[in-house]
Amino acid sequence: MIIILKPHTPDDKIQQVIDEVTRAGCTPHVSKGEFRTIIGAVGEEGQIHPAAFLTLDQVDNVVPIMRPYKLASREFHPSETIIEIGGIKIGGPNVAVIAGPCAIESEQQLLTTARAVHEAGAVMLRGGAFKPRSSPYSFQGLGEEGLKYLRAAGDELNMPVITEITDPRLVELVYKYTDVFQVGARNMQSFNLLTELGKTDKPVFLKRGMANSVKELLMSAEYVLSQGNERVILCERGIKTFEDSVRFTLDISAVPVVRENSHLPIMVDPSHAAGKRSLVNSLSLAAIAAGAAGIIVEVHPCPHEAMCDGNQQLLPEDFKTLMAQIAAVTTALGKKLQSSPAAPVPWREKPLKTKKGGGWTG
Amino acid sequence: MIIILKPHTPDDKIQQVIDEVTRAGCTPHVSKGEFRTIIGAVGEEGQIHPAAFLTLDQVDNVVPIMRPYKLASREFHPSETIIEIGGIKIGGPNVAVIAGPCAIESEQQLLTTARAVHEAGAVMLRGGAFKPRSSPYSFQGLGEEGLKYLRAAGDELNMPVITEITDPRLVELVYKYTDVFQVGARNMQSFNLLTELGKTDKPVFLKRGMANSVKELLMSAEYVLSQGNERVILCERGIKTFEDSVRFTLDISAVPVVRENSHLPIMVDPSHAAGKRSLVNSLSLAAIAAGAAGIIVEVHPCPHEAMCDGNQQLLPEDFKTLMAQIAAVTTALGKKLQSSPAAPVPWREKPLKTKKGGGWTG
Amino acid sequence: MIIILKPHTPDDKIQQVIDEVTRAGCTPHVSKGEFRTIIGAVGEEGQIHPAAFLTLDQVDNVVPIMRPYKLASREFHPSETIIEIGGIKIGGPNVAVIAGPCAIESEQQLLTTARAVHEAGAVMLRGGAFKPRSSPYSFQGLGEEGLKYLRAAGDELNMPVITEITDPRLVELVYKYTDVFQVGARNMQSFNLLTELGKTDKPVFLKRGMANSVKELLMSAEYVLSQGNERVILCERGIKTFEDSVRFTLDISAVPVVRENSHLPIMVDPSHAAGKRSLVNSLSLAAIAAGAAGIIVEVHPCPHEAMCDGNQQLLPEDFKTLMAQIAAVTTALGKKLQSSPAAPVPWREKPLKTKKGGGWTG
Amino acid sequence: MIIILKPHTPDDKIQQVIDEVTRAGCTPHVSKGEFRTIIGAVGEEGQIHPAAFLTLDQVDNVVPIMRPYKLASREFHPSETIIEIGGIKIGGPNVAVIAGPCAIESEQQLLTTARAVHEAGAVMLRGGAFKPRSSPYSFQGLGEEGLKYLRAAGDELNMPVITEITDPRLVELVYKYTDVFQVGARNMQSFNLLTELGKTDKPVFLKRGMANSVKELLMSAEYVLSQGNERVILCERGIKTFEDSVRFTLDISAVPVVRENSHLPIMVDPSHAAGKRSLVNSLSLAAIAAGAAGIIVEVHPCPHEAMCDGNQQLLPEDFKTLMAQIAAVTTALGKKLQSSPAAPVPWREKPLKTKKGGGWTG
Repeated sequence: MIIILKPHTPDDKIQQVIDEVTRAGCTPHVSKGEFRTIIGAVGEEGQIHPAAFLTLDQVDNVVPIMRPYKLASREFHPSETIIEIGGIKIGGPNVAVIAGPCAIESEQQLLTTARAVHEAGAVMLRGGAFKPRSSPYSFQGLGEEGLKYLRAAGDELNMPVITEITDPRLVELVYKYTDVFQVGARNMQSFNLLTELGKTDKPVFLKRGMANSVKELLMSAEYVLSQGNERVILCERGIKTFEDSVRFTLDISAVPVVRENSHLPIMVDPSHAAGKRSLVNSLSLAAIAAGAAGIIVEVHPCPHEAMCDGNQQLLPEDFKTLMAQIAAVTTALGKKLQSSPAAPVPWREKPLKTKKGGGWTG
Repeated sequence: MIIILKPHTPDDKIQQVIDEVTRAGCTPHVSKGEFRTIIGAVGEEGQIHPAAFLTLDQVDNVVPIMRPYKLASREFHPSETIIEIGGIKIGGPNVAVIAGPCAIESEQQLLTTARAVHEAGAVMLRGGAFKPRSSPYSFQGLGEEGLKYLRAAGDELNMPVITEITDPRLVELVYKYTDVFQVGARNMQSFNLLTELGKTDKPVFLKRGMANSVKELLMSAEYVLSQGNERVILCERGIKTFEDSVRFTLDISAVPVVRENSHLPIMVDPSHAAGKRSLVNSLSLAAIAAGAAGIIVEVHPCPHEAMCDGNQQLLPEDFKTLMAQIAAVTTALGKKLQSSPAAPVPWREKPLKTKKGGGWTG
Repeated sequence: MIIILKPHTPDDKIQQVIDEVTRAGCTPHVSKGEFRTIIGAVGEEGQIHPAAFLTLDQVDNVVPIMRPYKLASREFHPSETIIEIGGIKIGGPNVAVIAGPCAIESEQQLLTTARAVHEAGAVMLRGGAFKPRSSPYSFQGLGEEGLKYLRAAGDELNMPVITEITDPRLVELVYKYTDVFQVGARNMQSFNLLTELGKTDKPVFLKRGMANSVKELLMSAEYVLSQGNERVILCERGIKTFEDSVRFTLDISAVPVVRENSHLPIMVDPSHAAGKRSLVNSLSLAAIAAGAAGIIVEVHPCPHEAMCDGNQQLLPEDFKTLMAQIAAVTTALGKKLQSSPAAPVPWREKPLKTKKGGGWTG
Repeated sequence: MIIILKPHTPDDKIQQVIDEVTRAGCTPHVSKGEFRTIIGAVGEEGQIHPAAFLTLDQVDNVVPIMRPYKLASREFHPSETIIEIGGIKIGGPNVAVIAGPCAIESEQQLLTTARAVHEAGAVMLRGGAFKPRSSPYSFQGLGEEGLKYLRAAGDELNMPVITEITDPRLVELVYKYTDVFQVGARNMQSFNLLTELGKTDKPVFLKRGMANSVKELLMSAEYVLSQGNERVILCERGIKTFEDSVRFTLDISAVPVVRENSHLPIMVDPSHAAGKRSLVNSLSLAAIAAGAAGIIVEVHPCPHEAMCDGNQQLLPEDFKTLMAQIAAVTTALGKKLQSSPAAPVPWREKPLKTKKGGGWTG
């Protein structure tokens, strides 16, 4: 940490800061310039709160040197993490496509969609059973019934499934049915939920909050990682900006920025960013070209009748076209498009495991 | 709802939209212009999803007419709601000041602060026992121990208390100690938490999310109101923008915008917006002048030693100065500054009530 | 235009609005709902100011139906515009790469860079002679001397050249040397400059302002088009958001949004968006994959010594690698990468033309 | 400047940075931590470009210590600047109100408004003769004719006048009529215009760009100051954010932030921020309470007929009410509300001065 003092700070006030650095167990390195003095605090940075120094009148600014996350950083783990789920690889030189409806509306709707996206080349099935909706009067999801449909469709097609969890009280229930826990943008900083998920042994798909920086996203990943769950997949899905021609502005630079700073795979959700079907193809291809580990995209057999976000869901035939384009771009980049295994992968057969540290059984 | 068709839409495609409007139980009103046709759907708007129409190729845009919230709107409840808590009035022509430390760190720290802010004129005591922190390695709060200190301090000084709740699993515990539930910015769209709080009989202090519009804030209030809890206090605390000289940009216009569109009182948190002590006075006075029902401000006897956000907490003597300025501005505006009742207000003596619909006892 | 009245507006107040619509030469279409009345104003929308109706007390909202730009719109000009400059095609199924240093610093620096980017496959040469710098103490460009170097390098390598113009007083001077006028983000709404450029016969490369919506970008293009200059190339270069890991957030969705709404080609500047060399490749490929007509990228033979934005300029060898990747992705998308003509294209030989309407000679 | 190296940088790479610092004429101060080395460059900071170091592979980050502006800073000029214009004081303990129509539409419209705002207590008259409009089809202002009406009204009422200048070619013309040059938000970074205005002897009223930080605003002020014109008044008028209930989000914290970092007075434009008449009062009072030197507010005798921004202009009677509230709040804060001098102030009688350095005569 570097502590920058105000110009012309007298010696006793400089000494006060030096003393505080020493008291915190760090070694002070002092650089006196013509106008200003700068003090470096060398040691275990986590011990010192920048804010504590900012409260001193003679301090102008405090610059942390170390990143506020550790387990999620590239420094800690230099090679890219590849997460394997049911034979599908997320991260590294692989490109994976997750698809399915925004919300699970019925057994039939889910199965129709699942078969279509599976045939077109999706390797994981998405579908929401507990929907966070901004209005209390909107459809809130089918709950456990939806989870059952999702599990059944995944089993039939040999696709791992992913679904959103919005409440720490639901971890046990959702654990029974899903292969991957999805944490939505609105819950990226629901730290209790992240902590609970960090105690399970299933991967966590963590979406960036619509007002959160990439740094905050990595700090939220740290909540999961620090509980012992090392399988975190990040997801960029658009941020809030002044531009109103789209629902959210897809922050495409988050892809290379995450890859520079972290070893965790990063995917992209073009559907929620665009909020509009006609933009999904362009954003999907941009994501792959920018280096994303894949996309998660919404598909609905009849978007006009969708109970949620119909306007952003692709038709199955649009999705087929998109998959062909993704395949071409993936090849052009020298990466490998994932495809579904012919037979279920062994671990998927195992009985569900208990939560680490006990407490409940899956 | 108004459905705007693309230019030169042929008659059969126009008819399709008209039929859909009718099927949804609304009456279609058709206006044909030279280039475009516009269809108004008159009736119970809630029945129709704008998205359903946006998925039709011939539709260019859909404009909802009604606000997406009802119970929170001025149309539904034209006069301003005044919420009374332990003899203190929030809303209408009243100005109330809530103060206390960011986090409860010890019994002594809390009591010292509480006595100082009470003497200076604060009428409600704040203090966090469960702190949502962006890093898993930061101080997370004292938990129930902190709640006990808070209750004791409030009882000693005859001040209602307010504390943050971050998890639906904690409603029962926090209910035992607090007078007002605070929902933080990061949980403004934790809909399950809002629903649980809507089932209680204690006021909810709902902070605007740092990326949420005023409309979304009112929709989150609707979650609480629609469960039967009519006592919701809104709070503006700054939004994320590109400006980096402050932690968050205080959206001062949210105050008059909320007052135009809703009957609920709106307060302001200048401390979290500024992130810097030296800006708190200006923002506090601006809030009162803009018409806020009051402010919630952080005070710490020794900010340098604070375990959380020390840099934004006022010293007790700064707070005293601020209160004098607030009193002057409040008088200039013809409003009434709330002061603590000499004796506890009767309802505060009552045993805690059970949650509506039962399930647990407070 | 659709005028939405407040609930329960009495009949005489409704009639007032109807009368105003009629007075403005439009035909009113009235839809009375249970609570609200909505009035459509059918006719020549340009005649009515939405603001004029918003000032009436009984009006809740006014929704314009038509886009505020005409000549720039897809409705006006359904097929994509392809702009040809010295044998190079911008727009349609073509991908073109413009490269060169941020600022022209010396004859040698420019020539070295120009030869390197030409060899690697760039088809147009960029270089700034008049630099808009946020600090008055920063290097402001070589002025006319720089323009001469640029013209000479372009002529030697048979590449059209592009340079920024920041002041309407410089149109005549810059016209003498450049093939394309670049309008920077800070001048996107310098309407007098746009008007002057609209009177010339050289293409205008219009960058989006860092706080301007896509709609405003198209309205600025309209300033040029409405003066008779039909050759406008748009450019997305990043917008201001809260994210601070990059200089600007590249709004990749602007590419498909512009293409949906306008016939004008849209390119991307990954260098200014990223502000950091290591992100330029990812953003460039994302731009091509999203459907951009090409990129404009900064290259410097020795970024460490650059007088301006050294940190975002690619080394010539990085650029070569990037060009190979762009070629692969362009082919995967079925588009055509532009290459330099072997011999100068005829029109480049012509004497410079006079400004339309006279006034000065080029 | 502080240069932070990447972890585990080898000694020769550290030495390279030290050598570069020395070559730039600064003294390197080296702090070696367990993982990282940090190098302070002590000396004349302006000599070193942070970007030059960022281009080195071993450098992780560069932190400038000094502010990028000098003449505008509080460090350079510790006491608040008070700018006197025709007997009116802007800055320090004074509050001044500037009012008038958005655009000058006719002699009658301007005079009616001017008399009304003068009677209500405004001390300076605003009115636009050259309007920057986002659409080329909107009313662009009356030009010199409007300036004549403005000068005449100011002379009649003994009020200094202020009008916007959008083009460096207009400096000479506008100089003849105005007392203060207004630079609009869209031109805050039109550096050539700022430089020209810096050469005149009339005050410059500089509005913050809608996407510019406070730091950038002060750097633009530096352009004017560095030319020798010391009379710059800053103005906050709202920034672009995701919130769509207002046209721009008034950044009220800019007021105390500017006052902490600069000696220049800062005013607020509530009209453009709100974009809606009903919000103007709240924002105006908030501005005064936050410590602004005053407000610039739009008033129109008949907003319904306004040719520009009718929706945000106050009626004369609304303005009268606002002035009474401003007077009360100003008194409550212990500040002094400026009032018009009974007789013209001498300097206003003087013949117009020539531009410094000659070139043209006013």
